[in-house]
Amino acid sequence: MNLRVWAPNARRVEAELAGIRKPMQPANGGWWQLQTTLSHGTDYAFLLDGEGPFPDPRSPWQPQGVHGPSRHVDHRRFAWKDSGWRAPPLAAAVIQEIHIGTFTPEGTFDGAIGRLDHLIDLGITHVELMPVAEFPGDRGWGYDGVDLYAPHRAYGGPEGFKRLVDACHRKGLAVLLDVVYNHLGPDGNYLARFGPYFTDAYTTPWGDAVNLDRAGSDQVRDFLIDNALMWLRDYHVDGLRIDAVHAIFDRSALHFLEELQQAVTALEAQLGRHLVLIAENDLNDPRLLHPPGAGGYGLDAMWNEDFHHALHSLLTGERHGYYQDFGPIADLARTLSGALVYDGRYSRYRQLRHGRPATGLSGRSFIGFLQNHDQTGNRPHGERSAHLLSEELLRIGAALVLTAPFVPLLFQGEEWGASTPFQYFTDHQDAELAQKVQEGRRKDFAAAGTTSIPDPQAPDTFARCRLNWQEQEHPRHAGLLAWHKALIHLRRTIPALSNDRFDNIKVSFDEGARWLLLERSGVIIACNLNQAGQRIHHRGLKSAQLLLASRNGVVVEDEDIILPGESVAILG
Amino acid sequence: MNLRVWAPNARRVEAELAGIRKPMQPANGGWWQLQTTLSHGTDYAFLLDGEGPFPDPRSPWQPQGVHGPSRHVDHRRFAWKDSGWRAPPLAAAVIQEIHIGTFTPEGTFDGAIGRLDHLIDLGITHVELMPVAEFPGDRGWGYDGVDLYAPHRAYGGPEGFKRLVDACHRKGLAVLLDVVYNHLGPDGNYLARFGPYFTDAYTTPWGDAVNLDRAGSDQVRDFLIDNALMWLRDYHVDGLRIDAVHAIFDRSALHFLEELQQAVTALEAQLGRHLVLIAENDLNDPRLLHPPGAGGYGLDAMWNEDFHHALHSLLTGERHGYYQDFGPIADLARTLSGALVYDGRYSRYRQLRHGRPATGLSGRSFIGFLQNHDQTGNRPHGERSAHLLSEELLRIGAALVLTAPFVPLLFQGEEWGASTPFQYFTDHQDAELAQKVQEGRRKDFAAAGTTSIPDPQAPDTFARCRLNWQEQEHPRHAGLLAWHKALIHLRRTIPALSNDRFDNIKVSFDEGARWLLLERSGVIIACNLNQAGQRIHHRGLKSAQLLLASRNGVVVEDEDIILPGESVAILG
Repeated sequence: MNLRVWAPNARRVEAELAGIRKPMQPANGGWWQLQTTLSHGTDYAFLLDGEGPFPDPRSPWQPQGVHGPSRHVDHRRFAWKDSGWRAPPLAAAVIQEIHIGTFTPEGTFDGAIGRLDHLIDLGITHVELMPVAEFPGDRGWGYDGVDLYAPHRAYGGPEGFKRLVDACHRKGLAVLLDVVYNHLGPDGNYLARFGPYFTDAYTTPWGDAVNLDRAGSDQVRDFLIDNALMWLRDYHVDGLRIDAVHAIFDRSALHFLEELQQAVTALEAQLGRHLVLIAENDLNDPRLLHPPGAGGYGLDAMWNEDFHHALHSLLTGERHGYYQDFGPIADLARTLSGALVYDGRYSRYRQLRHGRPATGLSGRSFIGFLQNHDQTGNRPHGERSAHLLSEELLRIGAALVLTAPFVPLLFQGEEWGASTPFQYFTDHQDAELAQKVQEGRRKDFAAAGTTSIPDPQAPDTFARCRLNWQEQEHPRHAGLLAWHKALIHLRRTIPALSNDRFDNIKVSFDEGARWLLLERSGVIIACNLNQAGQRIHHRGLKSAQLLLASRNGVVVEDEDIILPGESVAILG
Repeated sequence: MNLRVWAPNARRVEAELAGIRKPMQPANGGWWQLQTTLSHGTDYAFLLDGEGPFPDPRSPWQPQGVHGPSRHVDHRRFAWKDSGWRAPPLAAAVIQEIHIGTFTPEGTFDGAIGRLDHLIDLGITHVELMPVAEFPGDRGWGYDGVDLYAPHRAYGGPEGFKRLVDACHRKGLAVLLDVVYNHLGPDGNYLARFGPYFTDAYTTPWGDAVNLDRAGSDQVRDFLIDNALMWLRDYHVDGLRIDAVHAIFDRSALHFLEELQQAVTALEAQLGRHLVLIAENDLNDPRLLHPPGAGGYGLDAMWNEDFHHALHSLLTGERHGYYQDFGPIADLARTLSGALVYDGRYSRYRQLRHGRPATGLSGRSFIGFLQNHDQTGNRPHGERSAHLLSEELLRIGAALVLTAPFVPLLFQGEEWGASTPFQYFTDHQDAELAQKVQEGRRKDFAAAGTTSIPDPQAPDTFARCRLNWQEQEHPRHAGLLAWHKALIHLRRTIPALSNDRFDNIKVSFDEGARWLLLERSGVIIACNLNQAGQRIHHRGLKSAQLLLASRNGVVVEDEDIILPGESVAILG
């Protein structure tokens, strides 16, 4: 096997193999190579101009953590049992977002395998894993990853990840993986020692940007694209959720995301199975989704933050931070019937005209959710929607997420209104950094008026976020779980709810009376957000049958529906 | 008249009118206003929280320079005599780039009026003026402008500029204006005192970037767009050349350039005359030129740097700096038949894959030149092509520029091989800045091995660059002038040379023998770059007639053409 590493600025590169140093030979384009018999499980590292040893930027496994040596993985050794696997299309998906560390008491890939039946039973089609690339310490959200090719050792490493994907596929679940290409974590990031992986031409919230358009950037782009292809090919992953693409700076004529999409399309043809790319994007830029022939990047979908913000602020009444841009039922109506609320409108929070209409796109290009790890974890105490809303409003939120034209996503435990929070937790080994994170977070929230917040570094903070699977038995939780199951069942069985063209959607509402009707090809979702019951008169209701209601007491009378306070009914 | 200024962060704004201070009233969106009877010629300035007075960011006239008060201009007062004026289309244009300060001994707009007949006689259809916005001091290229709305006082101010545009139009010449929206000059730039005009999120070679996508950026975008519209509407300019758009950073879903194009299109409809936008772009990104329906920004054309670099390096043999990416005849052939040499190819100079194919575009979307102010002025001694090439090679260069599918542009005096250089000159009034510029330039060129360079601040440096109109009489210059005239005449009279579709173009060449044949719908341009004469055999030559030759001794024999050393012939 030929050991290779890109180190264009080094004058001398050595490989350390099982403790023995061997000089590497320079090759084209800043690469160095060594002919060797590296076998599965061999530890190795690199020395640059005598400094190091450093782990391989493309390390497949870091059994001793981010500062330790890399361990070679022979991907051919794993005995996959998912032959013939084909993922269901995204348009038919119901996604659950999962954080491996807190999803189960074990906090491992293998632990998660034991809970797949719950997901199947719920009606989930796709699991989306928060980042699994090696990050410092044992506990973390995963956005501080530094070894982008190495599944986290504390989760079970490469083999564990393969076992989970294989198990998912055998049970009919597709697997999406969250990947972070806009920055690397601050600890254990040796990439800059190897080459121009970063540039100070742009500023990100996490420091220098990843170098995608300056000298040497071809290799950095390939580094990320090869990473994406590795997950899809060697780990059988069905798609990627690309974190914060607004912090991926690239002014090249061929944008990184379009190049990535081209590479994934080529792999798709080679593997003969469908692969998807989903972006998190704070810019409301539909160019990501438009086909390359129309000047777009051709991604499959993007997270619909506007839908979340409109729904969250409407249900909770919250108006702080970015929620100040949302609130009226009109905003929710706008996103339900055209994806984006901010499609060129002025945003008070951002202090600029924001976004662009999603012209020519349909619902399947957007992921809709009532909550995800971000909105939950970025609150001082990690409160989920279930902590903020009455059960009645929670049911309305769930109904809207699961009957909206968007691809629905539930955050782990959302389906039973999990009482466990999702707080920000870290396990930085670098004491100075740990203190900085702690203080930074305290300062952020102090500015917003919150003084007592959990310590991200404390093992307790992490432990508190672990799902409590037993609580599902409790009537409140069991009721919510049944409600989510019923909604998902409806979504997956009624064809009208698969028709995601915005021109097939009609929304009517009364801001004062606080009701909203969502009509989708003959199916009507009627929401009463008023605490008092009310009668809604609407032509579309004529001859509609009640399919599902969040509370007892819903009455349909000719062109009228009578809804109890804070309730939702689905008719068809 | 309502005096208005945008100063969103000020707590108090005063206007100083003819020495008297009056408080302004806050209005919506960070604007301040004052009801007053401001008439043409009134001097005014603003005080922010007691500091100042500062000139108006939108000052129409700075009669005392960049630090002085602004002077009100009533655009309705000028008596235009160009009614009914319509500019010829860009596809039929022959452009001359002009620097007002050095174009004539007077160095003014009025001075330039006296030389328009020369341009008409030459066959020029469009003049393109280097930036005229007020910059510090009397002498400068104009890229240090700080009062973007004010025609430079040393050139003749607003009235002078109008007289020039009016005179051009009456003589049938269209006027293009170079505008700089990527940065402002370092001296006299008070914009940051008024509002968030700049952002440190991006780095440009000139410091902080103009803020086009952060808080408050709507007003900054409007500031630039209103500026563009002012030139087109109030000064009757026919189009804009937008400087260095690769340094315009904007990740908004609606890119600044697309928004600008939308605004110009709307003005076009309102004025009933055609307006063009041309970009200078270092990224070889055809998105600028694609129509909005295809995800593009819809600009009319962009400068074709690849054509210049391929032609310049081929003719001069130079390979330093960015010329290291060019040299072979194959590169010239590639640009002649598809616009871009770097359309995704790896660039050694940039150390990355650069650009994207100009698919779906034709020649009229690119401006072609043998030289412009930049390539000339950025050499240590401001040498023009005429200083670097034999008359024979100069003639070949001119023939290729003027028969290429691109819109040709000649730099002032190029047509007679002007002996005057075009060096870098400034007139910074700030002594520290002046010294910094001087030292910076010395250091740049010292790094490249050139130690003695002209002092940019010295009046002599500027004077040396003034065109010497008398030298046209000299036989060498007169011959070159006649050659350019003949070529332009040919271009404007032979329909084949207006067919700018790349699929109608055939290029054949022999790298070893150093010849190139450019075939355009039956017209053949045959170039012999070899110092020795040679016979070229080619089917397309059969029955072709000699239309024009750069030297005596060209013979056409059936399918052969015999070309003397370093010569070009045009057949049709």
